[in-house]
Amino acid sequence: MKIFGIDPGTATTGFAVIEKIAGRVEALDFGIISTRPRIPPAERLLEISENIAELLEIHRPEIVAVESLFFCKNQTTAIAVAQSRGAVLAEVARFGASVVELTPLQIKMAATGSGRADKKQVQKMVQKIFALEKIPRPDDAADALATAFAAS
Amino acid sequence: MKIFGIDPGTATTGFAVIEKIAGRVEALDFGIISTRPRIPPAERLLEISENIAELLEIHRPEIVAVESLFFCKNQTTAIAVAQSRGAVLAEVARFGASVVELTPLQIKMAATGSGRADKKQVQKMVQKIFALEKIPRPDDAADALATAFAAS
Repeated sequence: MKIFGIDPGTATTGFAVIEKIAGRVEALDFGIISTRPRIPPAERLLEISENIAELLEIHRPEIVAVESLFFCKNQTTAIAVAQSRGAVLAEVARFGASVVELTPLQIKMAATGSGRADKKQVQKMVQKIFALEKIPRPDDAADALATAFAAS
Repeated sequence: MKIFGIDPGTATTGFAVIEKIAGRVEALDFGIISTRPRIPPAERLLEISENIAELLEIHRPEIVAVESLFFCKNQTTAIAVAQSRGAVLAEVARFGASVVELTPLQIKMAATGSGRADKKQVQKMVQKIFALEKIPRPDDAADALATAFAAS
């Protein structure tokens, strides 16, 4: 089963494609979609949508995992992330995959066994789980891997 | 010049198409896009996107006006509105129209001349400006008309 994890943002959207076969997980692809800061917000959202659509077509996942959005200290960031998330989710529905929403707690628990784990600990576990040479960079790609893993 | 106004939401998205010719404005069309509450969030976002894309193709506006999102008392609503807004804006960029973002204050000022006008007052002025028989219903359609007018 192929799971596609997404960590939405405006400037950077992390993505990861993992496969689960016979209880084992493997990272097939991960990285980020970057948008240029100088273009209008609507065009940045389209750029993210089009890149996500392309990745979905390439990898054809059964499930798409996205972190749920809750209260955020920075309201402006929360709105920007929610907008990106909305554009991405519409694209996932167009592709036809099932969406799994996971809380930050569920994602941390899945990767580390603890809800109090910090970002670094999650990243280290992501490296271990997928037997990667290094901690995946940038953070958004590692977050997308953790999100995909939590849905596996 | 044709201006398309959008008031994004999850359950109900208001839209309005107005035309400005020789300094006079006319409402060509207005209404709402409703999504079914029982379908998954991603599919509701897709439904809104597809309806907006269809309306843009029919009316071919030069400008699309959307209210800016700021701090909102209800965080859950703000996130839902932002997600809908993101899906809609990506669709507007795909169509190729220019996006004009207007603050609630700018919209009120344009319709009533006062930044302290209440919802009812804005709606009454929308009725007057577009010489409509009644106040446009539901509220989201009236809001979309006010938004489009503010961009005219």
